[in-house]
Amino acid sequence: MAGSVCGVTDPHASRADHSHPPAQHLHAGRRDAVRSALRAHGVPMLVVTDLVNVRYLTGFTGSNAALLLVADESAGESPAGGTDGGTVLATDGRYTEQAAQQAPDVRVLIDRDCTHAVLADRFARRPDEVADAARVGFEAAAMSVADHAALADRLASSPTAVDLVPLTGVVESARLVKDDGEIALIARACAIGDAALRDLLAEGALAPGRTERQVARRLEWLMFEHGAEAIAFETIIACGANSAIPHHRPTDDVLRHGDLVKMDFGAVVGGYNSDMTRTVVLGEADAFQRDVYALVRRAQEAGVAAVRAGVTGADVDRAARAVIDEAGAGRLFTHGLGHGVGLRVHEAPPVSSGATGTLPAGAVVTVEPGVYHAGRGGVRIEDTLVVRDGGAEILTRTGKELRVV
Amino acid sequence: MAGSVCGVTDPHASRADHSHPPAQHLHAGRRDAVRSALRAHGVPMLVVTDLVNVRYLTGFTGSNAALLLVADESAGESPAGGTDGGTVLATDGRYTEQAAQQAPDVRVLIDRDCTHAVLADRFARRPDEVADAARVGFEAAAMSVADHAALADRLASSPTAVDLVPLTGVVESARLVKDDGEIALIARACAIGDAALRDLLAEGALAPGRTERQVARRLEWLMFEHGAEAIAFETIIACGANSAIPHHRPTDDVLRHGDLVKMDFGAVVGGYNSDMTRTVVLGEADAFQRDVYALVRRAQEAGVAAVRAGVTGADVDRAARAVIDEAGAGRLFTHGLGHGVGLRVHEAPPVSSGATGTLPAGAVVTVEPGVYHAGRGGVRIEDTLVVRDGGAEILTRTGKELRVV
Repeated sequence: MAGSVCGVTDPHASRADHSHPPAQHLHAGRRDAVRSALRAHGVPMLVVTDLVNVRYLTGFTGSNAALLLVADESAGESPAGGTDGGTVLATDGRYTEQAAQQAPDVRVLIDRDCTHAVLADRFARRPDEVADAARVGFEAAAMSVADHAALADRLASSPTAVDLVPLTGVVESARLVKDDGEIALIARACAIGDAALRDLLAEGALAPGRTERQVARRLEWLMFEHGAEAIAFETIIACGANSAIPHHRPTDDVLRHGDLVKMDFGAVVGGYNSDMTRTVVLGEADAFQRDVYALVRRAQEAGVAAVRAGVTGADVDRAARAVIDEAGAGRLFTHGLGHGVGLRVHEAPPVSSGATGTLPAGAVVTVEPGVYHAGRGGVRIEDTLVVRDGGAEILTRTGKELRVV
Repeated sequence: MAGSVCGVTDPHASRADHSHPPAQHLHAGRRDAVRSALRAHGVPMLVVTDLVNVRYLTGFTGSNAALLLVADESAGESPAGGTDGGTVLATDGRYTEQAAQQAPDVRVLIDRDCTHAVLADRFARRPDEVADAARVGFEAAAMSVADHAALADRLASSPTAVDLVPLTGVVESARLVKDDGEIALIARACAIGDAALRDLLAEGALAPGRTERQVARRLEWLMFEHGAEAIAFETIIACGANSAIPHHRPTDDVLRHGDLVKMDFGAVVGGYNSDMTRTVVLGEADAFQRDVYALVRRAQEAGVAAVRAGVTGADVDRAARAVIDEAGAGRLFTHGLGHGVGLRVHEAPPVSSGATGTLPAGAVVTVEPGVYHAGRGGVRIEDTLVVRDGGAEILTRTGKELRVV
């Protein structure tokens, strides 16, 4: 695969599809929201280098990019030209055509050193801004210490002092509440997961003698057949004792009669992810399996019931965890209850014991308690759902009764 | 998918397989090499946070980890106990069992804040080291500005000053030269790509009426069937005018008689990647297509012929680029000639015009010139090869004659 001229790039960075561009006015509205946030922070401009955030704000999905947003300029106001104020997107020569197609309403620079390019361009066009000193916000969670040092070095040779201001969560805060179009994409991705699992069970692919890898590959194939543009994350298929490993990776282990089979998987549509876990039993379920399953199901439903706009992620975690704690199995539930889902599989808001922020209406989160008996077996049940004012709207529709297949 | 208790994690971080652990002595040897490099840098210890580097040095493949290496301690010397000097690996509770299995020769801590945990553990066990001040190297290219600030904050409350020293490329330099086991894994991944493409052509899957997406999914399926544990990067299938887009992502565009079809794909085995591009023509090739193909093939072969230990990446780039320049098509070859391949698809050494470092024997690189006529069509031919003293050992074996299929 051809890398950027400037060197190493992340092959996963462009993993999202660009065949479903939201309307350009959505991107312009998102940029306006971020500009407001910048004004609240008192920072006159922000250079966006997190590629997911670049996509969210422009629609561009290339693997090398930087975007400059100027707090006080919006559409049509810029003396610098361009169609959306001071907004400038930089990418490299591999993406010239793609950037023009995906982000027709912003000015595009072709320069391999994207971050420096958008700033140098700005200062060249508006030298007045750097007469004294320019304060430039950057995404501190998305820029490495090495890249920051290299940028500061290059800027040091510019005629005026540039003050790089570390910011975190500015664009992520805007991404927290999904609009109807985003929720529709996540719902479609969830429906693909439901359909693929239904087909997998209907065709008898979940049967003794198959390996975890074979089942995983088949489930992924079915998601593609149902319209997934990509797989959200590496599918987890864990049978027997492997089901007690929360993040088990599929092996050549063979499914056997009586096994618990834990399946955690998701699809991508328009860049948005789904995330669902179901656990079934092959052939017949014993009392241990039925008990663990019933416990996790009660906890999961308690978690879902606790979801509504205004509660904290910790409240929801506590509601589910209390069920497991009361059963004396608290130490077997070794991870947080859930997480936000969107352009990333794991994003804000967290849904765990330390999550003190309240969940806003329109956030999309998972609720996924698990109980894991090492060496014996584990159960996890997970839904993706929308936080609404009155409660939760579940997007993953596969039933949660214990299935013996 | 269950995230780390502490929040957001990268679902791609653990994408590599852990069913092919190299022998532990390999990991110990690699750690010794990095310790030597640390002594050369004059830095007494290094906290490794790049997960690929953690895997390279320990075998551990979890998605949340940090590793501490101490320059002056190697196997058996540490007063702190443990089986490999001062080496300590931290991960979170999801990976307790996996860490013990994959890295049995290092001490493992379970703590969600891995980076701080390995340092706090060290200072608690060896308070003498921080009597004055401790210098601790960190991977500046793998730590975000935000994570660095958070770590510095936590360390500020420790009794002694800790000086965080930014280092880049320390472990990457060790990874540059592959050992025989690593080369065998890359060769196996390349062979899987060869076999999958052979099957794809043999079964007639590359035919008018199929879509790019269908071909991509089928090729990936065939790689899995031949033993790939994962796909190295999103498969590029680009037909007709799309072939002129260097990094085209598969669409629902339909392959037609007379189309160029560019295919860029790779497999993963034991965590190691392959990378190959071939371009074919459907039905019959016209003079334009034959000319472009012949030019790119000559350039590719000139690039391969220039590879041997001791030349620079720029030398190799120049050898291929000269062929295209002489044909007057230089501006249509818009990217660097190649890149290193290993645990990452794109890694050191670069093979491009600015790559002044010499290629050592045992490095694995791609050679992949392309000529792209926008709106009309493009050709790229790419091999993965080992740099040897006398020349190149090509690992991707699919023939490079123009195929009309």
